[in-house]
Amino acid sequence: MRVIPKDKVIFHFNTTNEANYTVSDGEIFWVEVDDCYSGQITDASVKRPDIDISIMDCAVGPINIDGAMPGDTLCVEVLAIDLADHGIMVTNCGLGVLGDRITEPDTKIIPVHDGFAHFSDDIKIPLTPMIGVIGVAPKEGEIHCAVPHDHGANMDTTMVKPGAKVYFPVAKEGAGLAVGDLHACMGDGELSGTGIEIAGKMCLKVKVYRDRPIERPVIETSDGIYFLASRPTLDESIKVAVSDATEFLMRKFNINFPDAYRLMSATCDAQICEVVDDNMTVRVRCPKFDNRVQTL
Amino acid sequence: MRVIPKDKVIFHFNTTNEANYTVSDGEIFWVEVDDCYSGQITDASVKRPDIDISIMDCAVGPINIDGAMPGDTLCVEVLAIDLADHGIMVTNCGLGVLGDRITEPDTKIIPVHDGFAHFSDDIKIPLTPMIGVIGVAPKEGEIHCAVPHDHGANMDTTMVKPGAKVYFPVAKEGAGLAVGDLHACMGDGELSGTGIEIAGKMCLKVKVYRDRPIERPVIETSDGIYFLASRPTLDESIKVAVSDATEFLMRKFNINFPDAYRLMSATCDAQICEVVDDNMTVRVRCPKFDNRVQTL
Repeated sequence: MRVIPKDKVIFHFNTTNEANYTVSDGEIFWVEVDDCYSGQITDASVKRPDIDISIMDCAVGPINIDGAMPGDTLCVEVLAIDLADHGIMVTNCGLGVLGDRITEPDTKIIPVHDGFAHFSDDIKIPLTPMIGVIGVAPKEGEIHCAVPHDHGANMDTTMVKPGAKVYFPVAKEGAGLAVGDLHACMGDGELSGTGIEIAGKMCLKVKVYRDRPIERPVIETSDGIYFLASRPTLDESIKVAVSDATEFLMRKFNINFPDAYRLMSATCDAQICEVVDDNMTVRVRCPKFDNRVQTL
Repeated sequence: MRVIPKDKVIFHFNTTNEANYTVSDGEIFWVEVDDCYSGQITDASVKRPDIDISIMDCAVGPINIDGAMPGDTLCVEVLAIDLADHGIMVTNCGLGVLGDRITEPDTKIIPVHDGFAHFSDDIKIPLTPMIGVIGVAPKEGEIHCAVPHDHGANMDTTMVKPGAKVYFPVAKEGAGLAVGDLHACMGDGELSGTGIEIAGKMCLKVKVYRDRPIERPVIETSDGIYFLASRPTLDESIKVAVSDATEFLMRKFNINFPDAYRLMSATCDAQICEVVDDNMTVRVRCPKFDNRVQTL
């Protein structure tokens, strides 16, 4: 199985990046990635203000998928995530929801083994490995990898984990997939501004669909279909994701807007992905409560 | 077992309401409630603008708990919810996240039986019964039952369902518990502005604790402890609930703020309760990942 190494990266998703790799439709492959700091935090003495932020938050790629064309939908199935032997959690003044209560930067190196992140000698956290940055070329312009939007990127979504299928709208021939920013553990919200940031590799399977157009990322798991949106405020993001979920129900059940709106309210959950990036990402979960809502 | 009937209600939680009922510490009892419209929507011809809003969104009570004193914590365990045979879902211009796309009011009567809400002839929704309004007398002032805050009230939280323990800070002798606003089904967010609104009754068990002071509602389930906050914006609510969760971890693990902040970010989830009331309610879930975080 092919292993894509971590040395060729992008800092922006855009319409002009040339592919660094090409895989075939249906291919299964591994991608190696550094942590979000590009490996600059080598020990606890290196604090967040000490590093070169111009080389953090990158993504390995672009990886083109043979035959993917604008208007298609790319499905990226996460098959496995293999983590390095330690992760990093920094604090920094102003970072995260309570960053105003942090008075000095601090770095913690967290050993990862035996299914746990060893936060301290006596605190073990069960691992919840996930991919923070995953996206494709946007329709237009250039967007830094740290910023999530309709093309994906830094969605910091705990659902992007083994077993999930993540769908993206293809805007450019080949799609231009790029990935990075693994987390060993993270709760919904990424509330202190980081998860347990870690290097590692991920095993992905890609598939191109021509019959299920979407405008924004959608995630499918065994128990639901999640409509994602990333906008400057939570309110805006919720409105976009709720609209997508309602239109999905209109289409699947062949019902009018007011009925789909009610059905959505009675069944679907608004959920927080992250609240600490330049856009805030939410998802609306439609549970698989009926045979008609089993797939996108 | 005592059954508290639905005829004595309050429209505001305040410091001066006299108790209509008194139960003992540890007592199990039923409370009957009307739907949130106080039964005014008798059939599909009655639209949302037709009803008297001055008598909607009330709560049955106040129910005093013998011996509860200011500074105590009241635990209300939800043992069972018994639903009426039909619920109501209205649409109205401006109501809910996409209310600007509703052009005329409409009422749908939804039969409820056999474990499902029968949304239409061919759409059945699995029941997810929950209590929308549950609260106690606030520290000061008077707050309409429709508005959630630190005393609880209209938190519209799907976790308030059978199996959950809901904790409140006691601000007044007896606590002044009141409940209402059952939903047969609702997703997180209450996104169209309503769940499937329904009458029915709930079986509750109350217990007073003197050794676990809290400032705001906390919910405990088998899998986690949830810190709730209701403020005018989602951002403000998240900040309050995240602070409560972080302080909980500081206390339980005997660690400093920066470490608790990181541990919170790696393990706790920010979740949406509702985004359609005068205050928006969120919860931060601390999973029971360690022996030290099994109880409040």
